[in-house]
Amino acid sequence: MADESSSPQSLPRITEGGRIGQVDATAVPRFAGPPTFARLPRIDEVSDVDVAVLGVPFDAGVSYRPGARFGPAHIRESSRLLRPYNPAQDVSPFAAQQVVDAGDLAVNPFSIDEAVDTIEAGARSVLERAGRVLTLGGDHTITLPLLRAHAAAHGPIAVVHFDAHLDTWDTYFGARYTHGTPFRRASEEGLLDKEACLHVGSRGPLYSAQDLDDDATLGFAIVPSVEMDDLGARGVAERIRDRVGDRPVYASIDIDVLDPGFAPGTGTPETGGLTGRELLAILRSLSTLNLVGADVVEVAPAYDHAEVTGIAASHVAYELLSAMAPR
Amino acid sequence: MADESSSPQSLPRITEGGRIGQVDATAVPRFAGPPTFARLPRIDEVSDVDVAVLGVPFDAGVSYRPGARFGPAHIRESSRLLRPYNPAQDVSPFAAQQVVDAGDLAVNPFSIDEAVDTIEAGARSVLERAGRVLTLGGDHTITLPLLRAHAAAHGPIAVVHFDAHLDTWDTYFGARYTHGTPFRRASEEGLLDKEACLHVGSRGPLYSAQDLDDDATLGFAIVPSVEMDDLGARGVAERIRDRVGDRPVYASIDIDVLDPGFAPGTGTPETGGLTGRELLAILRSLSTLNLVGADVVEVAPAYDHAEVTGIAASHVAYELLSAMAPR
Amino acid sequence: MADESSSPQSLPRITEGGRIGQVDATAVPRFAGPPTFARLPRIDEVSDVDVAVLGVPFDAGVSYRPGARFGPAHIRESSRLLRPYNPAQDVSPFAAQQVVDAGDLAVNPFSIDEAVDTIEAGARSVLERAGRVLTLGGDHTITLPLLRAHAAAHGPIAVVHFDAHLDTWDTYFGARYTHGTPFRRASEEGLLDKEACLHVGSRGPLYSAQDLDDDATLGFAIVPSVEMDDLGARGVAERIRDRVGDRPVYASIDIDVLDPGFAPGTGTPETGGLTGRELLAILRSLSTLNLVGADVVEVAPAYDHAEVTGIAASHVAYELLSAMAPR
Amino acid sequence: MADESSSPQSLPRITEGGRIGQVDATAVPRFAGPPTFARLPRIDEVSDVDVAVLGVPFDAGVSYRPGARFGPAHIRESSRLLRPYNPAQDVSPFAAQQVVDAGDLAVNPFSIDEAVDTIEAGARSVLERAGRVLTLGGDHTITLPLLRAHAAAHGPIAVVHFDAHLDTWDTYFGARYTHGTPFRRASEEGLLDKEACLHVGSRGPLYSAQDLDDDATLGFAIVPSVEMDDLGARGVAERIRDRVGDRPVYASIDIDVLDPGFAPGTGTPETGGLTGRELLAILRSLSTLNLVGADVVEVAPAYDHAEVTGIAASHVAYELLSAMAPR
Amino acid sequence: MADESSSPQSLPRITEGGRIGQVDATAVPRFAGPPTFARLPRIDEVSDVDVAVLGVPFDAGVSYRPGARFGPAHIRESSRLLRPYNPAQDVSPFAAQQVVDAGDLAVNPFSIDEAVDTIEAGARSVLERAGRVLTLGGDHTITLPLLRAHAAAHGPIAVVHFDAHLDTWDTYFGARYTHGTPFRRASEEGLLDKEACLHVGSRGPLYSAQDLDDDATLGFAIVPSVEMDDLGARGVAERIRDRVGDRPVYASIDIDVLDPGFAPGTGTPETGGLTGRELLAILRSLSTLNLVGADVVEVAPAYDHAEVTGIAASHVAYELLSAMAPR
Amino acid sequence: MADESSSPQSLPRITEGGRIGQVDATAVPRFAGPPTFARLPRIDEVSDVDVAVLGVPFDAGVSYRPGARFGPAHIRESSRLLRPYNPAQDVSPFAAQQVVDAGDLAVNPFSIDEAVDTIEAGARSVLERAGRVLTLGGDHTITLPLLRAHAAAHGPIAVVHFDAHLDTWDTYFGARYTHGTPFRRASEEGLLDKEACLHVGSRGPLYSAQDLDDDATLGFAIVPSVEMDDLGARGVAERIRDRVGDRPVYASIDIDVLDPGFAPGTGTPETGGLTGRELLAILRSLSTLNLVGADVVEVAPAYDHAEVTGIAASHVAYELLSAMAPR
Repeated sequence: MADESSSPQSLPRITEGGRIGQVDATAVPRFAGPPTFARLPRIDEVSDVDVAVLGVPFDAGVSYRPGARFGPAHIRESSRLLRPYNPAQDVSPFAAQQVVDAGDLAVNPFSIDEAVDTIEAGARSVLERAGRVLTLGGDHTITLPLLRAHAAAHGPIAVVHFDAHLDTWDTYFGARYTHGTPFRRASEEGLLDKEACLHVGSRGPLYSAQDLDDDATLGFAIVPSVEMDDLGARGVAERIRDRVGDRPVYASIDIDVLDPGFAPGTGTPETGGLTGRELLAILRSLSTLNLVGADVVEVAPAYDHAEVTGIAASHVAYELLSAMAPR
Repeated sequence: MADESSSPQSLPRITEGGRIGQVDATAVPRFAGPPTFARLPRIDEVSDVDVAVLGVPFDAGVSYRPGARFGPAHIRESSRLLRPYNPAQDVSPFAAQQVVDAGDLAVNPFSIDEAVDTIEAGARSVLERAGRVLTLGGDHTITLPLLRAHAAAHGPIAVVHFDAHLDTWDTYFGARYTHGTPFRRASEEGLLDKEACLHVGSRGPLYSAQDLDDDATLGFAIVPSVEMDDLGARGVAERIRDRVGDRPVYASIDIDVLDPGFAPGTGTPETGGLTGRELLAILRSLSTLNLVGADVVEVAPAYDHAEVTGIAASHVAYELLSAMAPR
Repeated sequence: MADESSSPQSLPRITEGGRIGQVDATAVPRFAGPPTFARLPRIDEVSDVDVAVLGVPFDAGVSYRPGARFGPAHIRESSRLLRPYNPAQDVSPFAAQQVVDAGDLAVNPFSIDEAVDTIEAGARSVLERAGRVLTLGGDHTITLPLLRAHAAAHGPIAVVHFDAHLDTWDTYFGARYTHGTPFRRASEEGLLDKEACLHVGSRGPLYSAQDLDDDATLGFAIVPSVEMDDLGARGVAERIRDRVGDRPVYASIDIDVLDPGFAPGTGTPETGGLTGRELLAILRSLSTLNLVGADVVEVAPAYDHAEVTGIAASHVAYELLSAMAPR
Repeated sequence: MADESSSPQSLPRITEGGRIGQVDATAVPRFAGPPTFARLPRIDEVSDVDVAVLGVPFDAGVSYRPGARFGPAHIRESSRLLRPYNPAQDVSPFAAQQVVDAGDLAVNPFSIDEAVDTIEAGARSVLERAGRVLTLGGDHTITLPLLRAHAAAHGPIAVVHFDAHLDTWDTYFGARYTHGTPFRRASEEGLLDKEACLHVGSRGPLYSAQDLDDDATLGFAIVPSVEMDDLGARGVAERIRDRVGDRPVYASIDIDVLDPGFAPGTGTPETGGLTGRELLAILRSLSTLNLVGADVVEVAPAYDHAEVTGIAASHVAYELLSAMAPR
Repeated sequence: MADESSSPQSLPRITEGGRIGQVDATAVPRFAGPPTFARLPRIDEVSDVDVAVLGVPFDAGVSYRPGARFGPAHIRESSRLLRPYNPAQDVSPFAAQQVVDAGDLAVNPFSIDEAVDTIEAGARSVLERAGRVLTLGGDHTITLPLLRAHAAAHGPIAVVHFDAHLDTWDTYFGARYTHGTPFRRASEEGLLDKEACLHVGSRGPLYSAQDLDDDATLGFAIVPSVEMDDLGARGVAERIRDRVGDRPVYASIDIDVLDPGFAPGTGTPETGGLTGRELLAILRSLSTLNLVGADVVEVAPAYDHAEVTGIAASHVAYELLSAMAPR
Repeated sequence: MADESSSPQSLPRITEGGRIGQVDATAVPRFAGPPTFARLPRIDEVSDVDVAVLGVPFDAGVSYRPGARFGPAHIRESSRLLRPYNPAQDVSPFAAQQVVDAGDLAVNPFSIDEAVDTIEAGARSVLERAGRVLTLGGDHTITLPLLRAHAAAHGPIAVVHFDAHLDTWDTYFGARYTHGTPFRRASEEGLLDKEACLHVGSRGPLYSAQDLDDDATLGFAIVPSVEMDDLGARGVAERIRDRVGDRPVYASIDIDVLDPGFAPGTGTPETGGLTGRELLAILRSLSTLNLVGADVVEVAPAYDHAEVTGIAASHVAYELLSAMAPR
């Protein structure tokens, strides 16, 4: 019945280990039903929550191609194909922990400052209810308030940052909060463990050689994209582990860490990035770390084609959720 | 807070006349929040329902370009811009009546026969709860079971059918239920008032002149697209009124009634159709009829561009909901 | 069986009045089988031919966006939906006359001069076998050699030219044969009846007011696009009839006569053109003239979307074939 | 020679009446050379300027689909096909007056307030040098500072506003300057002649009936899109003339006044708009008014296809420049 | 001459070793002429056939994005660039054996059961005439009847299956024949040599760990995509050879084995797949096996861009045909 | 001020070492301002020039998908994100040498012979002013006249040619100058050092094995794409160095050397190419050679998506300019 299929409590669902999981694809076709992330329950349908997937549809901090405001909706729509068991990590992320879709934060599109405050407050609120949050952006501006919320809970944090860019620039047109500055601000604010942060996949031109010195001072080591062929995913995983140790880790994945051939739907693409296979393999290695939070940002659907960027982002989120799952 | 914004009861909403309306766009940006039709409440969030918007993601009856299974999701996503007051009909359709999104029916994509049964049962079930239903297809196959459900409530019904095609063909590859046959089946089953049915916008080649004779026998008059320039929207509205009188009317709008320039995202486009302005103007005239049900079908998003087809379909649905509103 | 379905003589076909018609869509789905125009037989499968549809995949004469070399293949692929009976002209064009697909001319893409010769020779050869030819371009350069072939058979000819542009410019970069010059060359060569030629749908800026004087001297009257709203299709049809009388008429339709909203897939689009409905209505009126040949040119698929331009061109061709059919 | 072709003073140009016009398309192919608007000279290449075409790449005021920041570049690129003589107005707009491309204003993408100030200052500066300015947006936010600059020169001004929306809303998320509010702000600031403003092409749902009352109070009459079929372009032109008389007129054209079929590349499309032919016809009638300034806004290229929106915008600009030309 | 160029026997062709090969691209441009696969002759133009390329335009078994019904036409159109000599395998596949295009099977789009029967009968019929068949899908449902036809000729067969998915699921919505089940059905029916089947490129989430156990029981080993970096193409080739030995081998390539960046035009894309270079390298190694049949499936053109998926599929087919060629 | 921002001398620019560099992105947003390559100054704005970037918008030599005439404009538009410091080569290419945009050559689109002469003359002229030129095509035909100009300055030259194809074919339709023949002509004309030329990335089918023999005779060694996995970028760089030694080197990069997944926007794509990361890594190694000139060709924007091909081409050009920079 329609009212039942639309009524979340009555939608046929896969449940395991007491967790309310995805809508059952053998009863409701994947192209039907509400587009929560991975067809998971909404946060208001579940009492105990381990991990919340949260949308932050905000892109006023973008310096080039805008549109990441439509990112959360696009990633959710692109996540309909995800299934419950992850063989690459040998875990069922929605059975091992209760994962929900917490909906979108209502963020002011016209005031970056107000938006940053709203996002911090929203993330704190969700973190009170769920142990962990995986955020779907939105542009990279949002990671600053997300780090504030996480540092409030965990103290200075190790950030593993996958991105074509360093995002440690200072100001741009006088604006301190943009998608190019979150990690400089975070470092300045003491949110980062400056011994333990790391960029992965950096490439493309910079403003000057000074950018690299500044970046190091702010607390980051770098595994540039150009070293991928030598290191392989295993080598990168090792570098990450060496850098972060057993500290609490926040993973921030800008989808432009992928080559534009794999992720055209983004705002500032740079040729020469990671493949999807490499990125997913590295992310799987985070399961051995103390992963306390994560985000996937900079998906700009107007530049996507056939959902390839959205699907990549949904797989990134899926591997992160799997890496968070208790074993 | 995120859990609040995702919690439907706490989403800030426009309410008027006791009806729970759309999410308030001044508090939650249009690109944020769940994509119910027109950002209306889900059926499980409301106790009394006047009109339910129901998705039927089904396209196994398509003879050419498939993809209408993604139609309901696409129309909903494309309906985010709809606002509460309709000046062209001088009515607030979500205040004058309680409109909800009833979600999608879970329809078998591999068996047309089973699907037809599921749709009829689902429509009956929704009609028990809501006085009227506006269905988002899906391909035109779905109109047969929808007419069964409506005829069960109203007896033989007057159908006003907007379409490039007659859809009164007989069988195709031995299949009796396809997107080219719903109105022949409906006529044969006695669901139609054969004095009062009408096609609007027909055009393009047929199999033979016999098609027109058969069609008339099945109960349909025709206002072909080629007469639009002479008649204008007012002239067509008059023809409709003359044909249906005060009978209960079911309106079925195949989006391909629009010219492919206005609706590329459909399965069997034919050059020479209506403009969006003409179609909306004609639909507004249905407000003076006894409109008991309606559907919008054949939106195939894979062929759409920049949501122009989805937006057209969302406006079609909006005018139909407005036409249903009590004055 | 596959070998049968691929064997043209064994493909199930609609035949009527002794003519071999389209592949039967009730036996072979429209998306299956070889993409001849309208799924008609190839010229080598038929002994007596009344009208040949001929492809000229050539675009070396294009001054702006190229790609019309892929036009014939695209129009054929976009013509799969055409059915046998044309209610708007009350004629079955493939039963009233034997229509075939004559394939493509093999035209040199690197030498305009050689290409023009090949096209003239090819058209003469086809005209020897078929009474009439409907050509699918290719850019508008091809109309000059086509007119040479037709004037050889009929003497100076009345041209009804649908186009956003006049195409009576002189030379461009020293080239006398380009897509902007065919009608000047044709007039100079005495191929045109200078009392009886007509442009329909002209619009957009010119080089100078002198262009209009030159154009008149070359033998053309003009019905500009801007007069469409006043004249309507009937008014334009009358103007055409008044101008051409009972002379032999060649119709040349540049798809850019349509507004870019209806035909994005073309090389030099100009805003403000005809609608598909208007164009088809005017073309139907050619059935009362002595239509001895026609072409549809300037379809550039790389700029098309969802085949809307290709489908428009296929309908244009279908109305022309219908207009050629004996009553 | 390359250095010559890149050297503006040496690019072969059409000059007439002492004015430096477009790059000569018979010497430099249209797809070659710098993409100034209509291939006109840059402002620094010319001493006396009558009309400046100015880009304002700003879209931080957009409430839905962003991307109009790329509008000026896209319209310029889409304007390569424009030729020097406009037969529909019988004028050569680049010979009758000196038109130049003034480049883009460098506007802060992160602060609407600062951007508004920059735009006003920039427009004032250009107006000091050129008698008139035609601005390419950018979102509709920019019209407020443009009106400030124009009102400073002309006093309260008659605005003829082509748009699907009224753009007289108040605030949105606390922001007073957005693309939905320019005309309310302008009216409040006394920039408008409240007896003489007019919306053309309005359609689609509003927030409430109150919107219409507010709008009237702010100084606007309305010619809604739904009346186009009755009025025709001539009727609308008459309404405009009746409303504005011989006052100084500023024309603001939001490209979404066109139906999405004609202009998909925009941020808030509404079905049922004007055709390109209608819009151009109405704009031509402005030549009889005292047109002191104009803008074309809301072209969002990421949603465009085959430049149809960009080309429409370039033709809009061309008709406005022609309407400004002295006779 | 046109009638000659359209007459297959007269099209200039490359012939070698008595085989009738491709249309000669030095005489007929690649964008001209009929779109048989690789511009090869039709089956009815040739008397002795070694390998037939057969289209099966069927997609009623698709669970997510449909459209593979247009796959055969799209792959053929995308195969126009293929040339006669394959340096990577040092073989001229169209000279070493007579390859033809057998056209499309006419398959019922509305009944999966009937379609499966038609495909089996059609494949048997073609196999009677041609020693081997390379099938262009269509969705993966078609591989079951194709395996029936091949097992009838060769007995239980070794399947090398390239795919993101296992396709050994059981039923879906009660349907036993879908694109997710062909290899389970084939195993149950005894069509497979259960010691010798192998998946290559599997990745992405499953329903449960049980899926892997079931899969092994049905006769498959797995080389998951995640091992590609370690194994390389040579390592995978070795695994294949070890598994299949000198048994008769059927290769089934679901184009989604490629990463969505290389093959967006498919129905159920999964991030993290093979590159085109890897896939082609592995396929070349099949030349040392006893390759008795093959298919390329799941190309959904509505999601393709610039034919990248179609071109990849055409190269896959070309390497398979080369691998079949006698040395 | 607008006139200032449009006035190149007054645009805020990054200058270093006396060189006039890019427009400063912290003062003028990247999406604003004139689209010269990398936002560099025009040649007429600078007195001393080291390297000129020159556009050659020509595609009349294309055998399949045309459109490279729009390549220079597209690459420039796609180069807005390039920043001044290249960390991968540790060089600031616009500070170490004066780089300018020399605009486009005005090339006859209708006569290949005349075009070839114009290009040679244009290149010679630019080379007189700038020590080196980096050309943006345009199709590969243009490399012949470019090599003539370079050989005139340097004598027979070592060519490192990145391409899916050999481009050493002879004639096509009688045309000696096409995009498939430049290197045969160059070798015949004695422009090449036949001991020192090299293709990188070749793949896909050829006409016959003879093609390889001819190619070797003309002076080329080959590093086919299929060897990339074994060699890695370092191995290829070594092969190049071994082949060219300290000779003057001209690098010609056909963008189709990349896999179609990374560069869909090109005319004759072949599956199985290089990744962007591999290509950029190899190009960086050219910094140790005596690189005297280079081109990037065959970017066809109509087939591009989200500028991924244009961005790849802009990065190729950036690495080449960096490799040219003195250390």
